[in-house]
Amino acid sequence: MSQIPPPASVLVVGTVAFDTIETPFGRAERVLGGSATYATLAARLLADPVRLCAVVGGDFPEAHVDALKSRGVDTEGLARDPDGETFFWAGRYHHDLNHRDTLATHLNVLATFEPEIPESYRDTRVLCLGNLDPTVQATVLDQVTGPDGSGPSLVIMDTMNYWIESAPEALRSTLARVDVLVINDAEARELGDTSNLVRAARIIREMGPQTLVIKKGEHGALLFTGDLDAPTLFSAPAYPLEEVTDPTGAGDVFMGGFAGHLARCGEISDEAFREAIVTGSAMASHCVGAFGPENMLSLTLDDVNARVQEFRDLSAIPMRLSA
Amino acid sequence: MSQIPPPASVLVVGTVAFDTIETPFGRAERVLGGSATYATLAARLLADPVRLCAVVGGDFPEAHVDALKSRGVDTEGLARDPDGETFFWAGRYHHDLNHRDTLATHLNVLATFEPEIPESYRDTRVLCLGNLDPTVQATVLDQVTGPDGSGPSLVIMDTMNYWIESAPEALRSTLARVDVLVINDAEARELGDTSNLVRAARIIREMGPQTLVIKKGEHGALLFTGDLDAPTLFSAPAYPLEEVTDPTGAGDVFMGGFAGHLARCGEISDEAFREAIVTGSAMASHCVGAFGPENMLSLTLDDVNARVQEFRDLSAIPMRLSA
Repeated sequence: MSQIPPPASVLVVGTVAFDTIETPFGRAERVLGGSATYATLAARLLADPVRLCAVVGGDFPEAHVDALKSRGVDTEGLARDPDGETFFWAGRYHHDLNHRDTLATHLNVLATFEPEIPESYRDTRVLCLGNLDPTVQATVLDQVTGPDGSGPSLVIMDTMNYWIESAPEALRSTLARVDVLVINDAEARELGDTSNLVRAARIIREMGPQTLVIKKGEHGALLFTGDLDAPTLFSAPAYPLEEVTDPTGAGDVFMGGFAGHLARCGEISDEAFREAIVTGSAMASHCVGAFGPENMLSLTLDDVNARVQEFRDLSAIPMRLSA
Repeated sequence: MSQIPPPASVLVVGTVAFDTIETPFGRAERVLGGSATYATLAARLLADPVRLCAVVGGDFPEAHVDALKSRGVDTEGLARDPDGETFFWAGRYHHDLNHRDTLATHLNVLATFEPEIPESYRDTRVLCLGNLDPTVQATVLDQVTGPDGSGPSLVIMDTMNYWIESAPEALRSTLARVDVLVINDAEARELGDTSNLVRAARIIREMGPQTLVIKKGEHGALLFTGDLDAPTLFSAPAYPLEEVTDPTGAGDVFMGGFAGHLARCGEISDEAFREAIVTGSAMASHCVGAFGPENMLSLTLDDVNARVQEFRDLSAIPMRLSA
């Protein structure tokens, strides 16, 4: 166990975007989106300061920046390229909401994004590397020196199948420098090159991340900590939702809530990671109840705490069992 | 909450079979199999008496009957048709072991199986209806009068996609008479006619079973109890196995362990069902470690209790979370 000394700042480097989302239940046109948007909104409910580093174009309305600021997010690191257009993503979810088709990806200003970490962000304790080119993620790692030059207390990273396939060497190089990798089960199977998640986890952790979180959507999440060959496992349930309106951003909210809890509790341990997973899951279960980041802009700590208690009830095994 | 008065007998009506099993790791030829074999071996570790009702052919070796007897299973209800051949199943598991192809199904004596429940079995408290024609399951329900003529204390039922598709009316009629339905997630989505498991659960429970258990393989199991519109849910993890040798019988062991625990604890309640699911899952995680019923023939109560403790550790959420 180690500590994250206060003030346990969180920095999220990722995307701020316009999303057009179609689900069987409706459509949202060019709403505020992006991994850094969702993750900072989640983290800021738990931790302070929460810093955002991303890029937008000249078309990005100041009202969206104000929305982030109104929730307490530090937007000093939100770069604006007045001649470019904001990253745009459009997707359509299938009826079961577990699968989606990408209809459009316009990288726009993201294509040339070279994150410049503001001086005021460099002492960040908890660094979240959103899903970006692993080479770009590495340049962020170079710039975040931590309060004493020895780097952040904790580095959490996301990635996706695209980088696993197209930039395996850069990905390995960045993975070797992070503490926690947060990916979904399909990505874990691909990165570990095996269908067995326990075996995949061992292989991935050998690449660098001491801690691995595997998100399984409606089936919850798995946490691997401790010894590589005899890991400590935690299996978190998913919150069973009868209605899901829009899954967009749920994974980013999960990572933001995860990071925010660790910053809040100031501890790096198996127990803290378990709590962080439940907290991130609780926030994600709220996020999917409305289109875009709508619910994240009004979520309260009471909402989160109540949902965390529901997770406890959901997974409680009575203690009466005996032979 | 209600009670199951002692002696809380368990009766499993199902199949006893020869199985030929191929997995990426090996092959087993005409080994002892069948739902009633696996389920009674599991239940008997926890409860007594455990009764078996099934049919075999003239080709069934007495040594297999002796194996069941040696583990304490009451085989009085194992009918033998000397002119017929024993039910035979052959299957091949895919590399990920989550999917299998059926290579052969020879119903043989099972094609005309009309279970005759021995007089000594009719007072059974906990009745397990293995996956059979729902019309056949109903004839068993007619014969098991319970100790006082009011029927068993608890009826647990399994079924499969074949009956959901080919005998929907008979299935509905039998479902209306059972207390607990135990099916997998694909079957639940098909029976409830929706991809959302929470919604499917409500629809299925409206068909009769007050309690629903949905098995999700490597993702654990869900339990629905309580109010139909505001159910109490329990999400049980799966035991994360790095090596699975043969998944055959895991679902039947789960049901047998589930029933055996309820008989052992003598209580019908949400808490007892949660414990029963963890106990069944613990036993199933042992079953898949060897071909056929090999592990079930040597499993001890200490093995089960140790694995139950591992399930607790696996799903424990620390209690320190606060705002």
